[in-house]
Amino acid sequence: MRVLLVDDDSSRSTLLRQALIDDDHAVVAVLATADDLLAAVTRHQPDVILIDVDSPRRDLFESLTQISRERPCPIVLFAAYSDAETARRAVQAGVSAYVVDGLAPARLKAVIDVAIARFEQHQALQRELAQTKLRLADRRDVERAKGVLMERRRLSEAEAYAQLRKMAMDRKLSIGDAARALLAAAELL
Amino acid sequence: MRVLLVDDDSSRSTLLRQALIDDDHAVVAVLATADDLLAAVTRHQPDVILIDVDSPRRDLFESLTQISRERPCPIVLFAAYSDAETARRAVQAGVSAYVVDGLAPARLKAVIDVAIARFEQHQALQRELAQTKLRLADRRDVERAKGVLMERRRLSEAEAYAQLRKMAMDRKLSIGDAARALLAAAELL
Repeated sequence: MRVLLVDDDSSRSTLLRQALIDDDHAVVAVLATADDLLAAVTRHQPDVILIDVDSPRRDLFESLTQISRERPCPIVLFAAYSDAETARRAVQAGVSAYVVDGLAPARLKAVIDVAIARFEQHQALQRELAQTKLRLADRRDVERAKGVLMERRRLSEAEAYAQLRKMAMDRKLSIGDAARALLAAAELL
Repeated sequence: MRVLLVDDDSSRSTLLRQALIDDDHAVVAVLATADDLLAAVTRHQPDVILIDVDSPRRDLFESLTQISRERPCPIVLFAAYSDAETARRAVQAGVSAYVVDGLAPARLKAVIDVAIARFEQHQALQRELAQTKLRLADRRDVERAKGVLMERRRLSEAEAYAQLRKMAMDRKLSIGDAARALLAAAELL
């Protein structure tokens, strides 16, 4: 596994790096802060991001939220101290495994396994939600576009749908995108 | 917090129970196996289920899957041994925090905090998905029901929709349920 390590304590990061190498992982980069995390993730394309801090701060969660949005990746966060509110923020920022006061080299493999399983479950659910939302938007926009065609060109519903399908095929669009293109044009015309 | 504890080792469960009480939790029940977990969850309505086993077996995951489907609740699973496949199964079964070889009384509070945050995130996403699917089904069924009315009663689209809305209001149904009732009746008539 390609691991990107963020650790604000250099002696701890040396130990962690060795533990990862002993577990057959490749440490692709070691950062002291998460300030340029997105750039590092883009450059190194890790399979997992492993972060070790004393106490997670708000700017860390902002960086992680950005990663989760733009380059989703399993994130393991080790912290020495935490509370319920910080746990909630970590989970919302896309942390797949949040371990408080429990960084033990022997447990590293299990923590990474759980983080990856959690990440994949969450991604699958997010993907299903995005697809369902798109299908809903497609249906709504196709209905609207049919309504515009029926009204302006005095077509039956079946004829309006046939016209829209033909436009989609001619322009190599999905029926939803064809409907949106028609609606945008109809606003101008 | 009301905790339901499942532990197959009675000396370990005594320690765990004490640690929970020290953290101001109420232990509402202690079970030796997860065989009747659904009945126990129904009876005691815990805020969190805490399970401690040496090595999680398939029948445990079946019980947990049933809980997640019928009485969703944050589940913390402690195991002495695990592997990547077991981690994946635990996450799929709805386990909110899966901790391998890391049961330390001092960390209990943080683990429960993370489990609850994770559970709430997952529930919110599931709820959004279910609502989006229902809206999609509603749109599809309303369109179909309008089509049936337009064809059989020679109505315009607007008239068909008005009829359907009237039926929904008269029978105190959502427009989607009214459409499904009409479609079911249309199959018989």
